[in-house]
Amino acid sequence: MHASERTRTVIEKIYPSIDCGRFPVKRVTGETVRIQADIFADGHERVRCVLADKPPGIEQWLEREMRFVDNDRWEGRFTVDALGRHAYTIAAWVDHFGGWREGLAKKVKAGLDVALEVLSGAELVEAAARRAAGTAQPAPLGDDPPHYDSALRKREASRLTELAERLANTTIPIGQRIELALSNELRDLAMRYPDRSHETRLEHPLWVTVDRERAGFSSWYEMFPRSASSDPGRHGTFRDCERLLPYVAEMGFDVLYFPPIHPIGVTKRKGRNNRLEPAPDDPGSPWAIGGAEGGHTAIHPELGTQEEFERLVRRAREHGLEIALDIAFQCSPDHPWVTEHPEWFTIRPDGSVQFAENPPKKYEDIYPLNFESEDWENLWRALRDVFLHWIKAGVTIFRVDNPHTKSFPFWEWVIDELKREHPETIFLSEAFTRPKVMYQLAKLGFTQSYTYFTWRNNASEMRAYLEELTTTEAIEFFRPNFWPNTPDILHADLQNGGRPAFVVRLVLAATLSSNYGIYGPAFELLENTPREPGSEEYLDSEKYEIKDWNRDDPKSLRPIITTLNHARKEHSALQRNDTLRFHPTDNPQILAYSKHSPDLESVMLMVVSFDYRYPQSGWLEFGPSKVGVKSTNQYMVYDLLTDQGYRWQDGWNYVELRPADGPVHVFRVIPLGQDDDLGDSSW
Amino acid sequence: MHASERTRTVIEKIYPSIDCGRFPVKRVTGETVRIQADIFADGHERVRCVLADKPPGIEQWLEREMRFVDNDRWEGRFTVDALGRHAYTIAAWVDHFGGWREGLAKKVKAGLDVALEVLSGAELVEAAARRAAGTAQPAPLGDDPPHYDSALRKREASRLTELAERLANTTIPIGQRIELALSNELRDLAMRYPDRSHETRLEHPLWVTVDRERAGFSSWYEMFPRSASSDPGRHGTFRDCERLLPYVAEMGFDVLYFPPIHPIGVTKRKGRNNRLEPAPDDPGSPWAIGGAEGGHTAIHPELGTQEEFERLVRRAREHGLEIALDIAFQCSPDHPWVTEHPEWFTIRPDGSVQFAENPPKKYEDIYPLNFESEDWENLWRALRDVFLHWIKAGVTIFRVDNPHTKSFPFWEWVIDELKREHPETIFLSEAFTRPKVMYQLAKLGFTQSYTYFTWRNNASEMRAYLEELTTTEAIEFFRPNFWPNTPDILHADLQNGGRPAFVVRLVLAATLSSNYGIYGPAFELLENTPREPGSEEYLDSEKYEIKDWNRDDPKSLRPIITTLNHARKEHSALQRNDTLRFHPTDNPQILAYSKHSPDLESVMLMVVSFDYRYPQSGWLEFGPSKVGVKSTNQYMVYDLLTDQGYRWQDGWNYVELRPADGPVHVFRVIPLGQDDDLGDSSW
Repeated sequence: MHASERTRTVIEKIYPSIDCGRFPVKRVTGETVRIQADIFADGHERVRCVLADKPPGIEQWLEREMRFVDNDRWEGRFTVDALGRHAYTIAAWVDHFGGWREGLAKKVKAGLDVALEVLSGAELVEAAARRAAGTAQPAPLGDDPPHYDSALRKREASRLTELAERLANTTIPIGQRIELALSNELRDLAMRYPDRSHETRLEHPLWVTVDRERAGFSSWYEMFPRSASSDPGRHGTFRDCERLLPYVAEMGFDVLYFPPIHPIGVTKRKGRNNRLEPAPDDPGSPWAIGGAEGGHTAIHPELGTQEEFERLVRRAREHGLEIALDIAFQCSPDHPWVTEHPEWFTIRPDGSVQFAENPPKKYEDIYPLNFESEDWENLWRALRDVFLHWIKAGVTIFRVDNPHTKSFPFWEWVIDELKREHPETIFLSEAFTRPKVMYQLAKLGFTQSYTYFTWRNNASEMRAYLEELTTTEAIEFFRPNFWPNTPDILHADLQNGGRPAFVVRLVLAATLSSNYGIYGPAFELLENTPREPGSEEYLDSEKYEIKDWNRDDPKSLRPIITTLNHARKEHSALQRNDTLRFHPTDNPQILAYSKHSPDLESVMLMVVSFDYRYPQSGWLEFGPSKVGVKSTNQYMVYDLLTDQGYRWQDGWNYVELRPADGPVHVFRVIPLGQDDDLGDSSW
Repeated sequence: MHASERTRTVIEKIYPSIDCGRFPVKRVTGETVRIQADIFADGHERVRCVLADKPPGIEQWLEREMRFVDNDRWEGRFTVDALGRHAYTIAAWVDHFGGWREGLAKKVKAGLDVALEVLSGAELVEAAARRAAGTAQPAPLGDDPPHYDSALRKREASRLTELAERLANTTIPIGQRIELALSNELRDLAMRYPDRSHETRLEHPLWVTVDRERAGFSSWYEMFPRSASSDPGRHGTFRDCERLLPYVAEMGFDVLYFPPIHPIGVTKRKGRNNRLEPAPDDPGSPWAIGGAEGGHTAIHPELGTQEEFERLVRRAREHGLEIALDIAFQCSPDHPWVTEHPEWFTIRPDGSVQFAENPPKKYEDIYPLNFESEDWENLWRALRDVFLHWIKAGVTIFRVDNPHTKSFPFWEWVIDELKREHPETIFLSEAFTRPKVMYQLAKLGFTQSYTYFTWRNNASEMRAYLEELTTTEAIEFFRPNFWPNTPDILHADLQNGGRPAFVVRLVLAATLSSNYGIYGPAFELLENTPREPGSEEYLDSEKYEIKDWNRDDPKSLRPIITTLNHARKEHSALQRNDTLRFHPTDNPQILAYSKHSPDLESVMLMVVSFDYRYPQSGWLEFGPSKVGVKSTNQYMVYDLLTDQGYRWQDGWNYVELRPADGPVHVFRVIPLGQDDDLGDSSW
């Protein structure tokens, strides 16, 4: 037995609380966190409960009363503003004062004699006065609530004492004392100093990881800097990349992501199209990291110097672009660590280092690190220092290659270590693996995650996947980043679907997910030839050679990409995933979905046909009322891609989607008042 | 950083695990516990995992390998035999040997040179040999697995060493060594000694409360011993109760439950029909506990002596009946504790003890205990000692009155205290309150629980409620006990529905829930007059007076009760709730549901009309295949209430239910082989 056993309240079924509070939920600055829990006491007692939160670096909990929802469910909200780990917890206690007041009111109404009840109340109020005066127990979650200064407490204590004395003063007529007992003044004052000596608290606080806004809303453009040269055949440089910044920025992207920029190994180097025998001038794969010139903290000499890289980072910022680096923790046979730290690798019985393999496939140009190494602590520190090196150079966004082939505890440790000092850093998990492993990496700290988007290729699959991502607990910790293509993945739909497929996959990525990206210029230039039939590899893949792209090709998707990215910036509905709603259509090829801002100022409706060859038409059910807009049943939908508007009704509306035009609508939804002018000027 | 950070496996989403393992699940002896969890490692590693369990009082974990289900989900089972708290946990590790063997097989198949791989395997096998010899780390969850004796380990260690040497012996042709490497002998031996040095374990073990079978299957008969007299007007005694044992036992009940048997207070005693002014000979309510003769450990003198009570307990056992006592932790104003321990009560400003109330209602004959008392530890001990007193007298089943008005931590403590020494005790929670409070009491340790059954009065409500109880996590900790009536509850359906309503509610209680009870003889004698219209109280309630029942009334429901209880004992399908399945009907008044034993030997189908006035007919879809019986589409349903059988088809079958006959079927389902004899002899 211990004293907490006089505790009478229960707090359970807290939402969100990932794996019993083992992992934090995620938010970006400015967002609200809504917390619900079942909270109740034995018997018929009233309970009171507070949600308390504590921003990073702050010592004191800030409490706010929770609101009763229904069926012993309570809710509270707080807003997160500072980057870092934000704590929250709940406390609950039996509300003796409120119970007394409620009982008194009922007895008075029933005409009972309440003289003794009023005296009982005087005792409760006197106790509140003692707490206000600070001579009783302090508020358990912290020090004095900051919003009460001691002078105020003193005044309130003395007023409470005065009220208690009057309640107990039998020379005052009982009617007057009853009125006082039930007064709002007494209620408000007494409730500020509740008896929390037997309150229930959570055993451990829960956590929110608060990221900057770009963690929740970002548009990525991936390119190989070595293909940035303007002279065909010349190795691109960071200087060349500077020249391309306007190209990328004008399309509306905000993250410019480079595959690894480090020296490339020569031993077992892969040739063009992944050939085992490279030609002498084959540049090799940037993911075969490390050579005589250095490893993960060095720069491939042909790209430029550390100074030039840092200058590029600064110049990019001037264009509203952040440079994201690819961190691939694996080594070419020529990486300095292979000789300096052989204990970080797996050594085979003949003394050689174990290369990567997926039996029977061998990847002899790549040595994986051994996370079961006896020297694992130094290995972890060295890997952390790789991030720190590039953070120092101005990089704050990292795309992490194959994180699922490194140990889970390492990621939890390193991301926490890094974000402690650099809470602005963003980590994108490139794990294309089993669903629970992908979720685990997100729980461990990755800010954003690659997804199965690329392989969801019809309306019903896409809807089911998005519902999993946005209507389950996953939305609390897993931030999807949708990619229609990557240097590794040229999906059959793009190979076969032509321009309509590119447009559809682009629109889906950019409107279903607030974070998305493309690998360019392959994407905008509609590159769609696979290495061989059935393969998702590009023919003449940029992974193994330098490409000469005609960025001014008139067939480029630049215009629609620009329009879409502009729409994403302009319409805040597209900057979040939690308001995604699917809407019924009578044609299974057509997917209709909306997003809206919480204030309903921005409502977007997307209509997409998955048929890249033939026109599809049908009816879809939608209206602003479906997302909570009140008292309007007429509205306009305005297609941001075609600059065409339609007047629609709340209910079923007709759509026709033709592949030639790009079988998609990206509608801004504009509710109309009863007597709105529907002339062109209303646009 | 600490050493466990080389751990690479994750164990999560364990089912069952109530409130993150805070509470145990419940089983009865002989039952199987099926545990599932998501278990995975980083990368493409194979994992192995074990479910370990530990019966009460045993020091050593017993491990069994878990089985892969799908999508990183694993499953294991164990059986519980001993009463008490049974622990279980999970351990998982990367299966390096299995991964090596799988990779080797693929490489061999692809025709690759595997000389080095075979040498790597030799190292793994040599390490397994060291573990077998016991010079490597011990099995982490306990000592040596009990099924390996040390002589066997020694033999296996030396065989593993021999195999490792052969694998490493390059004078042996590689083909032979590959064959050895992939041999079943090596696999089986090496897998017995895995490298678990970096295994993942749960932070805390999880628990099963193992009760005796009656906890899961019981038939209760409630009666007031003071009405047991055979002479009208004379106060019944325990001796009279002895005389009634055959009456109760022959109906097939196994628990005979008495309202409180303690001295009844005289101060503020309630008269007949709950009148405030009692007549001089009014016996008072047994729940107004305590008088000059004693409190919760005393016996009301008119019932008999402690010796007579204990004799009754023994005699009841001879009839297959256990006596259950009602434990109501509240006091009449005359209870000895009121003067001996005023600090256990709430004292009002005038020095009087606070009586029970539900404003504006007052219950001045009842003083509640104050669980926030400063002397709470002595209060708790005194309450525990009440149970111990009656356990010593031979009572092992307690029906606890209004447990939700006592503090939650008290129940968790007292039930644990009592079951530690007396794991055979059964506690039935009489909490008719909000759903989450009722569930909480079950989690805290109550063995069985009263439910909302009485107020679920049509087919769809009943189905929804039962699905909540049997298809959610609730089934792991909440054992329902269904009552068609209690001394406090005469539902309107019984008041108005006549005999058909009594039959329907009886059949529903006895077949939907493996635990059920009736308050008799009021129930079997069809007592159905409320105190006033709209009330659920009985007129001339036995709570306030001694009743003279005509137990031999020919209208009595004794025959059908006897048949039902016999069916419950005979057909094991009715002894559990986890196999409850509802079946479609085309008439919303008709509810059809089945239960089956895990071995499918016993299959029962119930069909019930909720219309107590008019016949109802319709079609219902059922067949033994619906519950897993294979290769039969013809079967008989045999009504145990009417002794009539029908030949049915897998699919839709016609039923007609007439109130006059009792609008219910309790069918035994008998699958028929292709050439079964359908004559009467097949019954």
